[in-house]
Order: sequence, then C-alpha cells, then structure tokens
Amino acid sequence: MLNFDFYNPTRILFGKGRIADLPKVVPAGARVLVLYGGGSIKANGVYDEVMAALSGFAVQEFAGIEPNPTYETLMQAVEQVRREKLDFLLAVGGGSVIDGTKFVAAAACFEGDPAAILDKRGRNITDALPFGSVLTLPATGSEMNEGSVVTRKSIKAKTAFSSPLVFPKFSVLDPTKTYTLPLRQVGNGVVDAFAHIMEQYMTYPVNAPVQDRFAEGLLLTLIEEGPKVLANPEDYDVRANIMWCATLALNGLIGAGVPQDWATHMVGHELTALFGLDHAQTLAIVLPNMLRVRKESKRAKLLQYASRVWNITEGNEDARIEQAIDRTQAFFEQMGVKTRLADYQLGADSIDAVLKHLESHRMVSLGEQRDVTLEVSRKVLELAV
Amino acid sequence: MLNFDFYNPTRILFGKGRIADLPKVVPAGARVLVLYGGGSIKANGVYDEVMAALSGFAVQEFAGIEPNPTYETLMQAVEQVRREKLDFLLAVGGGSVIDGTKFVAAAACFEGDPAAILDKRGRNITDALPFGSVLTLPATGSEMNEGSVVTRKSIKAKTAFSSPLVFPKFSVLDPTKTYTLPLRQVGNGVVDAFAHIMEQYMTYPVNAPVQDRFAEGLLLTLIEEGPKVLANPEDYDVRANIMWCATLALNGLIGAGVPQDWATHMVGHELTALFGLDHAQTLAIVLPNMLRVRKESKRAKLLQYASRVWNITEGNEDARIEQAIDRTQAFFEQMGVKTRLADYQLGADSIDAVLKHLESHRMVSLGEQRDVTLEVSRKVLELAV
Repeated sequence: MLNFDFYNPTRILFGKGRIADLPKVVPAGARVLVLYGGGSIKANGVYDEVMAALSGFAVQEFAGIEPNPTYETLMQAVEQVRREKLDFLLAVGGGSVIDGTKFVAAAACFEGDPAAILDKRGRNITDALPFGSVLTLPATGSEMNEGSVVTRKSIKAKTAFSSPLVFPKFSVLDPTKTYTLPLRQVGNGVVDAFAHIMEQYMTYPVNAPVQDRFAEGLLLTLIEEGPKVLANPEDYDVRANIMWCATLALNGLIGAGVPQDWATHMVGHELTALFGLDHAQTLAIVLPNMLRVRKESKRAKLLQYASRVWNITEGNEDARIEQAIDRTQAFFEQMGVKTRLADYQLGADSIDAVLKHLESHRMVSLGEQRDVTLEVSRKVLELAV
Repeated sequence: MLNFDFYNPTRILFGKGRIADLPKVVPAGARVLVLYGGGSIKANGVYDEVMAALSGFAVQEFAGIEPNPTYETLMQAVEQVRREKLDFLLAVGGGSVIDGTKFVAAAACFEGDPAAILDKRGRNITDALPFGSVLTLPATGSEMNEGSVVTRKSIKAKTAFSSPLVFPKFSVLDPTKTYTLPLRQVGNGVVDAFAHIMEQYMTYPVNAPVQDRFAEGLLLTLIEEGPKVLANPEDYDVRANIMWCATLALNGLIGAGVPQDWATHMVGHELTALFGLDHAQTLAIVLPNMLRVRKESKRAKLLQYASRVWNITEGNEDARIEQAIDRTQAFFEQMGVKTRLADYQLGADSIDAVLKHLESHRMVSLGEQRDVTLEVSRKVLELAV
C-alpha cells in the first residue's frame, strides 16, 4: 500500500424526505444563494421542496448553470454573491451545478482575477464561502469531494481544480429525486461512476486488498443495478444503490493508498471541450480502448478484474482480458451510452484536433506510469473510430 | 437501504514515517498534553519520535491510561489539563488511550461532574478540546470515530458514549509502529475488528449491496492477513492492510444505511467489567454463540456470509450456516483468542452474574430486532461454557 492522506468532512444526509432537513444544516441566519441549472428542478418539484425548507432564510437564486459549467456563466454568480453580500451557497442539481458552485465559492473570496484559480488548479485558494448541495443526478461524486471541472469557453478548455476548502459542508442525497431523470442522464451517470472507479482501480497491484475489494464491490453493484434502473425507474433501492455507489466512487476512499490513472478523463475532457460530447460519452469512447492499448502495463489488474468483476475464469490470459474489456464496452452500450467516435459523427480527422489540444494542455505523459504519450493517446482514439 | 447520516471529519495520515508530519496537523502554538498507557511506546521508539516531532510545542504528558480506561484515572488527566491550561490533546497508543482521551477532551470542557457524560452517553457534550491520535494498535477503530468506552471502577460498569465533538482531528497510522506488538494484542485486534464488522453486517438484508460488499471485503482481508501477521510480524503490507481494515471496520461507513446489532458487544462488556477479560476475548466467546442462538432471524445474511466470505456452497442451509459459524470460531482460535468461558477459568456460575449486570444496565432487549432478551443472552452464554 502507498502512503496516503484521507480527509473528507462532507456530511451526507441520505434518503427519502431529507430535503426537509436543510434548516438543520444551513447555518442559522445565512443569506443563501441557491444555484441550479435548467428548469428540471422546477418540473420535478425539487425546487419547491428546497424553497419550502429554506423559508426561514434570506434566499436568492442563480439559474442557468450549464452542463460543463463555464467560467463565463459562473462569474455572473460571483458578481451576485458579492453585490448582495450572500454568505452561503446551495447547489441544487447534478455534478455540473455542484462543480460550478465550488468555483463560485472560491472565486467570491478570491483576490484578483478568479481565472487564476483555474490556471493554478486550485492551489492558490485560501478561502471559500461555505456551501452545501442537494444532489439530483448521481454521477460525478462532486457532492462529496474537493474537485471541480470548469470550462472556459474563450479558450475551449476544461480545467480541473481542487482544494480542501471546497468540500461541500453537506450534501442531501434523496434517491426519489432521481426518478424523473432522462434515461440519457441515468446512463451517463452510471458510466461516469464506473469510469471513476476504474481510474483508481485499474492500474497495477500494490497489495491493497481492501481498496481493490471496495472498488470491485462498487463496480459489481453498478453492473447489477444499472440495467435495473433503466427497466424500473421508480425502484427506490436501485436508485439508492446507484446514488451511493456514485458518491463512493469518487470521495477519495477507494483511491487512498493506490496508484491512479486518469488518462481516460484527460483525453475525454478534450473531446467535450472540442465537440461538446457529454462527459460520460467521452469516457465510454476512450476507456475500453485505453485498456486495450495499455493491456501489458495493466495486465495483472485486468486479470483480477476479469475474474472478480466479470467472473471470467476460462481461456488464456489474453482471451480473458479481451473478454473483460469487451464486456465493459457492452455494459456502456447497454446503459445507452455509445462507445465509438462515429456514433457521435466524429471521423478520424477529429483525432488530430484532440492531440493538438492535449499537447497544448501539456497532457503528454498521462497515466499511473506517466507513459501515456501523445502517440499512445492517438492509438487509443484510432481504435475508437 | 435505510435512511442515514454519514459524517466523519477525521484526517488520516497513513504510512511509514508519518509521525514526522505532526507539526503540520497540531495547531501552531498549541499547549499539548500527550496521553499514553504503559511503557510500550517508550520501548518501541514511538514516544521519542512523537516528542521529537513536537519539539516546537509546549508539551506535557500523562501516562498510565489502562486497558479499559477508567473514569478514575482519566479524571486525573482532566485535572492536569485544567490546571495547566492545556488546549490540545494527543493520544499515543491503542483504542483504550484514544477512548480515554475522548473522555478527557469532553470532560475538560464540561460544567458539573463529568460522570454525567457517561450517564447521558455523551448526549450532553456541548464542547470538547481538539485532539489527535498516533495509533499503535489496530483494533477498536476509535482513531476515526466519535465513540468511546470508559469504565467506572466504583460501580464495575463499562459505559459507551459518543458525540460528533469527539472525532479526532487527525490520526497518524504508521504500520511499522505495530511491528513490536505482543501477539496477544495483535490477535485481539483482528478479532475486535472482525466483530465490529459483523455487528453491522450480520443482521437482515435491506438491499444494500455496497455496504454488504464493503463489509465482506474487510472480513475477507482480515481472514487472509490475520494469520500472515502472526507468521511474519514485520511484513509491512500485511500490517498496513490490517490497520486500514480495523479503521474502516468502525468509522461509520459500513454501518450507514443498514441495521446494526451490537448485542455481542453489550454482553461482552459485562464479562470485561466483571472478570477483567480483554475486550476481544469477550467477543470471541460471545459472537459465535450469538450467531448460533439467533440463526433463524439472521438466516439470510448467514447464508450470504457462508457463501461470500467462507466460500461454503455445498450442503443444506443449516449445514452451511453451522459450518460458517464454526469457521468463524476457528479463525478466532487461529488468531490466538480462546472462545470458551472455561478457557478463562469461568464456569457456569459466571453466567448469573453477567445476566444480573445486563439487567441492572437495562440491556434486556438487544440486537437489531430488540429480541435479545436476558433469556437469549443466557442461552448464548450457556453455549459458551
């Protein structure tokens, strides 16, 4: 096992009806900005429930945080926070709204141009407004971690930043609030969580059996529950299990003490920034082929994955590995997320654009062994055409 | 899945050499009281390492916290804290030292007689001194939770209390510091962690596959690594895996959203309070027989446990359950912890004394179904003679 620090102070309020508990966790007397995305929380009743719970507080709202939240939009919220002297933020939505709120929380307290937060990937954050979240889309894990990804439209760049100062103080996870999600977002969410787990699990062995088994437990649960949620969108337990899986997939626990990869995410971010694909779509395209190209350096864990997650024990090693990767890709397709560039009307010519962006963002030695060069990324994308 | 709150703000510093990082996590300018037990930390170098790391701080010490820490001893530390105006505590030792430090932290800030903290099981704690720990014995999980057990010698009672105010601010987990532990304590620690997991796992199904798999992952790891540590006390990875297992066994995670039992612990506490048995010894005596007596209400989970943890899939249900319980008991014996009352020179006459104590402590309807009456506890102990 590698040395590690683990720290995660976010309080989780999990279960049916928990939005009503907001007054117990929002500080008394807070001047609250409720941030959200489009109109879905108004259509499904979450907005009304949140506002009813906050009736004892001074509340303003900021609507219109987009999927892949942009610096340009978020700076309008920063302006509102400063102008109106708001002192607590409440993100109501999915990972994009929570990621965006993290940026607003840090930017509102930042001296100088908050774009520097992205340039320095959060290392220069010294203060942030406290905030909580009401999660409506299980996927990114942002509700219980210190990370965020923000897009600058001006330079077509998706930039991740992190800071312990942007852990949510609390997150409300009510599985019933996910019943009305479009199936596309449900499938995306499962694929996103699955990929998060793989980035922390599918590397090389360091004798960390607890972390391995936790990761495998989450993967197995997503594989079991994912198809059920498409078939029965209002099955409470299925929704609850997926929601808790997605949170635990990226709250720091399964990645503590083990190597981590994240090359799939870095390549995927460029596909979103360049062509507007959903985040999970990019992961579904890149991940299976990333595993194929890097089969040798990941051999031991791929064999473990084949056996423990897919119960593949017959055939020679290469056949078992291939089968495990094929089944991973088929699972993404089963969740309704297409896995080829052509499915998104992208041809081989898109690859050069991605590589150029990777190079300009200095993403030239990715992965747990730092051996995912531009040439390796090219091979991965070529397999995905 | 049941509704739940999860909150755990303790920072973990895990790995070789991490004691040197104390100055990064002890507040600057703190007046520190270092609390410890007997002399083992002086013999194995931990004391010197801690004191060297704290050379920039005003440091006092309090030695002599006993296994099953007593109110009577701890109140002397409270007196020292108040007299010397100390403002940060550092527990250096195992669960008993950390449990004791939690009491000192709360008692030092308590108005009135701190015995009331035990009477109210911590619900009346409104403030506590901040504290951290350097863990030397993986077992109780106290290093990353809000619970503590303190013994009052005057009334022969072990009382558990808890409060979110007594989470350690940080805990340093350096597996190399456990190399010199006596084998008895190593075995006790593994049994203790195992029992903690079982108290949260071995109840009835609530469709919580993630919690089940996490619990099973920890159990499997303890079963694999436990015998290895007895054979090779200085195997770093084995020590690290056991240490992380013991912490995760009782940090709130695997118990979130599922029913919990704890009847074994309640009966075990009386055996320690009356006869001075090690905590883990009482668990090894009680747990297998608690499972035998309550086989019907735990049937579904016992079958799952037999299959997933012990790989027992042949034979009828009752045979599989019996085999799983037998193997559990054999594992405790393998770890050097005896599982019968007679092994500790206790006869059938001890049972009445335990039952009388359970009754006087109102422990008359224990377990996840509140159906562990005194009569059930009697049957359990009678099987353990």
